[in-house]
Parts: sequence; C-alpha cells; structure tokens
Amino acid sequence: MKKHDQDFMRLQNKKTVYEMIKVRSPISRALIAKITGMSPTTVSRIVGELSEQGYVTEFELVSNGLGRKAAMLKLVDTSVLSVGIELDKHQYRIGIVDVNGVLLYSRVRERLPEESAEETLNNIARVLQGMIDSEGVNSTRIAGIGIGLPGIVDDERGEVVFSVQLGWRKVNIVQQLKALTGYEVAVDNELKLKALAEHVKGAAAGSKRTVLLGFGTGVGSALIIEGEIYRGESNSAGEIGHTTIDPNGALCECGKTGCLQTYIITSALLNEANKIRPMDTIEELFEARKSGEMWAVQLIDRALIYMAITINNVLCMYNPDMVILSGEWLEKFPEIQPDIEQLCNTRFVWELLRNTYGLQCTVLGEEGVMIGSGLLAQTRFFSLD
Amino acid sequence: MKKHDQDFMRLQNKKTVYEMIKVRSPISRALIAKITGMSPTTVSRIVGELSEQGYVTEFELVSNGLGRKAAMLKLVDTSVLSVGIELDKHQYRIGIVDVNGVLLYSRVRERLPEESAEETLNNIARVLQGMIDSEGVNSTRIAGIGIGLPGIVDDERGEVVFSVQLGWRKVNIVQQLKALTGYEVAVDNELKLKALAEHVKGAAAGSKRTVLLGFGTGVGSALIIEGEIYRGESNSAGEIGHTTIDPNGALCECGKTGCLQTYIITSALLNEANKIRPMDTIEELFEARKSGEMWAVQLIDRALIYMAITINNVLCMYNPDMVILSGEWLEKFPEIQPDIEQLCNTRFVWELLRNTYGLQCTVLGEEGVMIGSGLLAQTRFFSLD
Repeated sequence: MKKHDQDFMRLQNKKTVYEMIKVRSPISRALIAKITGMSPTTVSRIVGELSEQGYVTEFELVSNGLGRKAAMLKLVDTSVLSVGIELDKHQYRIGIVDVNGVLLYSRVRERLPEESAEETLNNIARVLQGMIDSEGVNSTRIAGIGIGLPGIVDDERGEVVFSVQLGWRKVNIVQQLKALTGYEVAVDNELKLKALAEHVKGAAAGSKRTVLLGFGTGVGSALIIEGEIYRGESNSAGEIGHTTIDPNGALCECGKTGCLQTYIITSALLNEANKIRPMDTIEELFEARKSGEMWAVQLIDRALIYMAITINNVLCMYNPDMVILSGEWLEKFPEIQPDIEQLCNTRFVWELLRNTYGLQCTVLGEEGVMIGSGLLAQTRFFSLD
Repeated sequence: MKKHDQDFMRLQNKKTVYEMIKVRSPISRALIAKITGMSPTTVSRIVGELSEQGYVTEFELVSNGLGRKAAMLKLVDTSVLSVGIELDKHQYRIGIVDVNGVLLYSRVRERLPEESAEETLNNIARVLQGMIDSEGVNSTRIAGIGIGLPGIVDDERGEVVFSVQLGWRKVNIVQQLKALTGYEVAVDNELKLKALAEHVKGAAAGSKRTVLLGFGTGVGSALIIEGEIYRGESNSAGEIGHTTIDPNGALCECGKTGCLQTYIITSALLNEANKIRPMDTIEELFEARKSGEMWAVQLIDRALIYMAITINNVLCMYNPDMVILSGEWLEKFPEIQPDIEQLCNTRFVWELLRNTYGLQCTVLGEEGVMIGSGLLAQTRFFSLD
C-alpha cells in the first residue's frame, strides 16, 4: 500500500480521528476537522463508522452560560475489547484487554509439552469461551485475538514457522484459531509483544524507542519505535541471539558457531555445569555460585559479561532511550541486575552511549505478553469494516 | 511534537499534498481533496503556500471533447534545489541537487588535513558561491545545504561531536556555515546520507528497509526505513563498529576491547601487517596477498570473515530486504565481493535469513554523499515558511 493511495489515506484518517478522540476526549466534530484539516464530510463519515462499530459515542455537552448544546465525542472504553494470549511450553494465559491495555479478566492453564498444536488450540478455544461466559463479556465487543509465543513467527501469513519450545513447525495458528473461535487472530513472537506492552503502559511508558531484552531459555531483543513493533522484512528483526560473537566459538543449535546465545542461554550454561556435576536447573547453578564454587562463579560471571555486551550491542545498533530487561534470569535472580549495570558502566558500554538510555526490569511481569497481544489485536483489527 | 497536535497535522498535510503532486502530477485540487479527505480550504491553503514558495505551478489542461479547461498542478522540478556537500579528510565535494536527487553541478577540492574547521568552512562557502555564480544557479531556489562527514554528529544541535578523520571536536558546523552562506544547513554522518541516496535512487531503489555498510578507515552501518534515516536517541544507531565481539580482544580506540572494528578497519590491519614488514597502504597488503605471502592471506581472509559476520549481525538486528556494501575496501578491491558473499552463504549468515535480502555494492559512487546530503536538506527545509 502506497502513501498516496486512497485506501491508505482512508485508513490513516480513521486512525487519526480515533487517536484524536482517544486523547482529546470530549471533542466535537468541528474541532477534529479544524485540527486535522479534514473536510467535515470526511470527519462525519469516519465518526459514523466508528459509532456504528461501537468504538465511539456522542453525548450532549451543555456549555456554560449560553445553555447551547454541543455534540461531543468520546471513546466507549469498555466497548473495544480484545483477547490476549500467551502460549508457552508448559502453560498458556488468556486475558481480556480493554482499549487502554488494562487486563480485565484472565485465566492460566497448564499445557502438556507433548500436546499437538490442534489439542492446545482446542483447549485455548474452550477456556476462552468459558471465561467469556462466566465473566459475562459481551462477545460482540471483542475486536479479535492476539497470541504471543516463543519462536519464529511469520506474522503476515499467521504462521508459527518454527518453535523449539512448543515443538511446532509450520503451524498456521491464525487460520486454526479463527476457525475454532470465529474471531480474527493475530500472532507474533512473545518478546515483541512484551516489548509493546512495556512501551505502551509498562516500564518504558513515555519512551520513544524501547528495546526489550529477554535472557532465559533463549536470548532475544525487540525494538518498538514510537508505538510500533519494528519487524523487518521477515519479522526476524531483533534476533540478537544469532549474531555471531566468535567464528571459532561453540556450535549453536542454528548450525553456526559462536552465536551470542551460546554464551548465555540456560541450556548452554547447564551443559557446561554438567561437566562438573549433574545439574538440571539454573537454581542449582546459582546455589553453587553462592556457596563459592569457583567454576559456578566463573560460569555465571561470564554470562553476566555477555549480558552487558548484549546491552552494548543493542545500544550501538538501535540507540534506544530505554532498555528493558526480562526473562527467567532476571525474574528468578533480580540481584544480578546491579551487577550487569555495573559491568555496563565500567567496562562494556561504549562511553559515547552511556548517558543515552535508561535501564530497567519489566514491570508488567506475567501479564506483559497478554497485554501486548491484546493491544496487537486491537491495532490490527480495529480498521476492519 | 505529538501526533494529535495541530502543528504536526499541518506539516503532515503539507507533505502529503506535496507528495501527491510529485507522484500523480498533473493533478487537480479537487482530486487531491478527494483522495486525502482534506477539506477544499485546507488543500487550497497548502497549494497556495507551495506556489508562493515556488515548489508548485498551476496550468490549464484542456480536456478532450468538451473543451473545458481544468486547472492542474505540477511540481516545478528545477525550482527546488539544494546543496549537497561531502566533507572528508583530504577533500570535499560540493554539488547542486534537484528535487529528484539528480546532481546538476559539482565541484571537488582538496582539503589539507591540518586545516581548522574555520578554514575549511570558509573555503567551502567560497567554492559554493563560485559555482552558483559560474553556473548561473538561481540562488533563491536553493532550499538549504546538507553536509555529510565521517564522525559522530549531533544532527539536532547541528554539531560535529567528534571526528577522528577531520580532527574536529564539538564544532557547530551548522551555525558557522549558515553564518557564512545565509542558507539553512543540516549535517549528518556521511554513511547515513550515502544510505539515503542509495535507498532513494541508487542500488536499493524500491527497497523498504535498506542497510548500508561501510568498510574502510572505519566500519559502520546505516538503516533507512521507508525513506527515513533511522537515527535513534542520539543519532548513533548503526555504530556497529563498536559492538563487542570479544571481551578479551584487542584494544579499540574507543577504550573498549574486542570491538568489531578492531578486526576489519584499515589501520588495524596495517598495524598487524607492520609486524611482518613496513607497510603504509592497503594496496601493499593486497599485493602481498596476491603474491601468496601467507600472513597477508591470513590477515585478509580473517577480515573477510568478519565482514560476513557483520552482514549476518545486521541481518539479525535489522532484518533488511537489501544490504549495500560501500567503502574503501569494496571500491579498491571489488573482487572481494563474491568472496564475502560465499562466506555469507556457506557459513556465516543464519540459515533462516539467507533468502530474505539482496546484496549489492553502491552504484552512486562518489556522488552518493552529495546526493544524500542534498535530499536531507530538501526534506529538512522544505517545510519552513
């Protein structure tokens, strides 16, 4: 779609009017026309569409003194809802999100790692319908479903290309979930959606360019530029885990050697740890470090150095104003944050970039992906006629 | 400036009308209003402004059959001009660029490396005035000057923060050049401007997300997203040369260790080469490789590997549809391009990204930075009243 196409302009104008009502509510049609330069006809057509779709309502404001009535517009807050889903190896979360990104209701359910895509999606559809029924949600108000998961996602085709965690390959999740629920569905990588949520209403609210980093079973980054997810050509932007650090380094699951993730993901560290003694969890590794076992100190210290390097490298590439840390490592061992920060400030972040960004952990926690997914669904399906 | 501000909307609308006339010329006011949804008043006000500023002209089109005359709008091509300057250690280039990015006239002059900023800018102003006079350029048509140079540039404050190549630190080039010439001035890093030029009308014309890489005295990258330079918070986005590759690597001029640039910039390679025998130029190094001297083969082969790694890393971070190679290495020894490509395809680019991008060398050559600078000046100063 090109910038000078009529369809493009229509969509842009609709978004502009919607934004204007959202931010400046209550506002009159005349003022919208004045500010935007749109014709009264255009404004009225769009307001008509928005009212019909239930997004906007008109009420009469009696102005002081003259007693003249003016028709004012405002958003019907509870009117636009969406479903936000986080799908992970061992569980899924389903939530109902309103237009401000507030999570109204949610459910958490376990998932068996060996479940097929079909089984999981059937379960999700069932739990969602149950929640809608028991909470008395008006289902006609639901604009659509957003779903976030770990892995490579083709958001345009609505396909999970490959997810190690779920064990899925080429699953058209959008088609299947739409068939099961009747709603429009959008899918994306969980990290991108978590980043969107933190950018819109979490730790990075007010930031213009936010990078979210995830350190855990994988390592990834997501860039949000003024409210929009930066996806790149094939929705792979931010795959920092596969930037090469050392061509002579350890073999990565991707088939290359010395990828950044080989230095910091949980499985890589546990592999190393098992050279010393049997160990299944990152908790045991941290325990060994705490009791001063030198190999564990070395292993974790090296990982923290590479986390600081990761921060430097995203700063160099994306030059964001805010970096948000997330993932298993930070959630389970928040005490490593000051250590990482110190490494950044004393050794690993390029001097010229040191005062250009803020560093913080996520604040939305386990609600992040649900909220981000819900917001994605709203932007995506808001403009459908 | 916020998206729902009246000033912001005015600027957006002006750009939209200008774009529309540029792309759909000849076009009537009525059709612009219809496509954009703007009111006839808004369109007329903007067209009036554009005519007054000399960007747009109206002519009468006699339609077939009825003989009815319709007033149609078109761009005055030669009307909008700008000056594009490339400033480098040993020389500067000054050009006049039209609205389509065509270079109409240009001059190249030598610069003494020890010249102060004041001397260089005085010389530039004098040569520019000479060119305007001798070519008979209507100076009232010049929207402004764009200037590109190597180094860290604060484009908002119009300041060269630091340029190793020019030996400048904290030079307010915009203020000084404006005082000397009377024109509005915009400054940016040369690589970003070269990328913009290749994106708009060079090797990456038609690309949505272009990355340009420069391999030479420095190493850097620039990302252009749909016609706009991605700058980040402090105009440092793309500084891939200072992404850390190995915390135990060689010391970089920035004070960190193991920065990517320590593996590939010319000075680093010549430093290494001088351990074997005295050598001043990259040509001598390539000569030694050609005659089969093993150390030279090793040194250059390693550099080529790190160039392939650079490509992989920008693909992971930016996921562009086009990667453009530029800089001294590629210009002087184009035969390395197929070698780099082979390294990418066989070992260093992550499999999932292999078919997502095109790889090409610059086509605008030494005109690139001038054209990009000229285009920057036009976008920047077009909207001034």
